Amino acid sequence: MQRRRFLKSGLALGTLTPLAGTSAAMEYARPPWMNEPGAGFSNYGQPSEHEKAVIRWISANPAVAGNGVAWCPLHALAGMVTPNGLHFERHHHGVPPIDPVQHRLMVDGQVARPLSFSVEDLRRYPLRSHLGFIECGGNSSAGWHREPVQTSVSYIHGLISCSEWCGVPLRILLQEAGVVPDAGWVIAEGADAFAMQVSLPMDKAMDDTLVALYQNGEAVRPENGYPLRLVVPGWEGVLHVKWLRRLRVASEPAMARNETARYSDLMPSGKARQFSFSMDAKSVITSPHSAAPVQGPGHWQISGLAWSGRGRITRVDVSVDGGRSWRTAELMEPVLAKCLTRFQYDWVWDGKPTILQSRAVDESGYVQPTRETLLSARGHNAEFHYNAIVSWAVDAEGAVEHVYA
Amino acid sequence: MQRRRFLKSGLALGTLTPLAGTSAAMEYARPPWMNEPGAGFSNYGQPSEHEKAVIRWISANPAVAGNGVAWCPLHALAGMVTPNGLHFERHHHGVPPIDPVQHRLMVDGQVARPLSFSVEDLRRYPLRSHLGFIECGGNSSAGWHREPVQTSVSYIHGLISCSEWCGVPLRILLQEAGVVPDAGWVIAEGADAFAMQVSLPMDKAMDDTLVALYQNGEAVRPENGYPLRLVVPGWEGVLHVKWLRRLRVASEPAMARNETARYSDLMPSGKARQFSFSMDAKSVITSPHSAAPVQGPGHWQISGLAWSGRGRITRVDVSVDGGRSWRTAELMEPVLAKCLTRFQYDWVWDGKPTILQSRAVDESGYVQPTRETLLSARGHNAEFHYNAIVSWAVDAEGAVEHVYA
Repeated sequence: MQRRRFLKSGLALGTLTPLAGTSAAMEYARPPWMNEPGAGFSNYGQPSEHEKAVIRWISANPAVAGNGVAWCPLHALAGMVTPNGLHFERHHHGVPPIDPVQHRLMVDGQVARPLSFSVEDLRRYPLRSHLGFIECGGNSSAGWHREPVQTSVSYIHGLISCSEWCGVPLRILLQEAGVVPDAGWVIAEGADAFAMQVSLPMDKAMDDTLVALYQNGEAVRPENGYPLRLVVPGWEGVLHVKWLRRLRVASEPAMARNETARYSDLMPSGKARQFSFSMDAKSVITSPHSAAPVQGPGHWQISGLAWSGRGRITRVDVSVDGGRSWRTAELMEPVLAKCLTRFQYDWVWDGKPTILQSRAVDESGYVQPTRETLLSARGHNAEFHYNAIVSWAVDAEGAVEHVYA
Repeated sequence: MQRRRFLKSGLALGTLTPLAGTSAAMEYARPPWMNEPGAGFSNYGQPSEHEKAVIRWISANPAVAGNGVAWCPLHALAGMVTPNGLHFERHHHGVPPIDPVQHRLMVDGQVARPLSFSVEDLRRYPLRSHLGFIECGGNSSAGWHREPVQTSVSYIHGLISCSEWCGVPLRILLQEAGVVPDAGWVIAEGADAFAMQVSLPMDKAMDDTLVALYQNGEAVRPENGYPLRLVVPGWEGVLHVKWLRRLRVASEPAMARNETARYSDLMPSGKARQFSFSMDAKSVITSPHSAAPVQGPGHWQISGLAWSGRGRITRVDVSVDGGRSWRTAELMEPVLAKCLTRFQYDWVWDGKPTILQSRAVDESGYVQPTRETLLSARGHNAEFHYNAIVSWAVDAEGAVEHVYA
């Protein structure tokens, strides 16, 4: 529908951005790079040197070696897939230099037959792909601040990325080991210096969880868990244990640091919201953004990402008047479950100050809440799982600023 | 179904590959990389140093600078997406070092308003994604040889890759320029030293063709056309003009070198099969392969890729007895039109010499032909567009060899 509206406007863009007539001799002249042979072939390609600004931004904890995050530059990307070099990072104690030949995955605890798998062993099993997002439970946590944080959309919301993860269904490995009846949990442990540990309910382990060997076709990257990563579709990032070393079947969760002191939310009642697991539906406009002001009235594409841990995105609404009215955005195909969905909306800006917002709806019927609604439910002490509607003010000069509205 | 059959076999794998009991103290001991903090964050990630063998193989023409191909290592990949660093290359005169700020795309010829677009101009238009394959028309041309070429599956069939291409629908740009009625062709030209040129029928230009700015989320890689590449879903690779510089609307095709002397096939009649465009349905087994022999009788995953330029793959049949009988392989989701589809089949090898084959069927009902059928239609003088069933002999030791069967 947006496309039809756009096309009806015919030369609208032409009247906005002067498109030079091609009579200009300069444009027909062969540019210098057509006058001699270009560079040769390469064994493994890299981005253009003109794209050097498109990088992960690192926020490292100076107090702990290898602790921190690296943000995915959402503002510079298009479509749904994140290239492997730009997938966000969250480490607790650095990226271990694992030798894949020596690495083993142990499956033990409440099982009939404790097993140990080499990477080569795992390659003999049937593989399954999941094209989907991984989002850190701490993504967008700036939203809990009393005042809107003034920084890039990527520094606030860039702890999410999307890849085709391919690996062995965890169900098959657990069935090989023979899970004892009523063993309700799988404790996953990573082979990093932090020995990262989390607890995964058995139902999810037996559903769509993967022991991933591949990320976008090639071996999982070191910073994403080489050689093995747990992939838990739609659930918070901390469960996607990297450098996966051990799966211990148990009757109780481990109550590890990253499922108690962290990645749980202190509620107004004083109790903690723990094991929230599935990421609630969310969306964020990535263009226009604070480093790319709107350059004058006219047609502009509002573009952004929407996702839900519960399934497919069914609709994204966009408001260009601070939430007074909402229009349906176009969703870019394919729209897949537990995957990023790119939305776009053809916005005709009249040059007046306004506020841009997006609101995701998923197939469960869940509607992304306003900030007010989220705060009234969770209070002001939470630090994780912020998924409220994000608002961007555009001033008369086109400058974009993060606001609460 | 394959999965069910596999699961029914229970510990079948365990009885084949000795899976060490985890009582081994060695396996519980923390590996050395857990004893100190790992590497820090990086702005742009790279594959593990243990994956250095997973590269594009270069076949450069020593007589012409920057002419040749680099093969995608299909044998080492999984799933459907090709990581950007490993997308196959085909250049005629090298990779031009284009400055994206200076680069222009001209739309001229039989149009009402000749136009010129900067890369920034194009970013203002609605974008669309196509998650799909690009296959060189010369891929698999070894199949035309009288004797089966003995080399890696990737050296024979690796001129195909799959990405999420995101860009402006060409239709919108042509409508902006105002195509003159009855102008049946668009001549696309690249900004490389070869001034690569091909002719695209107007119907396809107005259908799903894109002027791609992005590849798997980030800017198109230099060797894949930075900053602009034509993407013509399902059609042969040569039409996906890289470093796109000019689109000239015309009443006749250009009859350029790469649509007459090349990428056309000399038929038994002495006439040439020209403008074949859409890539016929095809499949190839990528595992087991010649560098990874089958290591003894038992369960092995036969894995491969299938695709069709006409739409979705509806079925892939696998034969493990040289074509005497066929079983339906499992297709990995999502199965998308004009996209690679990964298939797998759980094969129980009895240890006797045999021949493995795969056969793709697409939604148009087209069935991948046998070599005999293809040769009887096209003769022995063709050099391009080989899509017959590929056969791999497995000997009693498990060694894999390319055969005609």
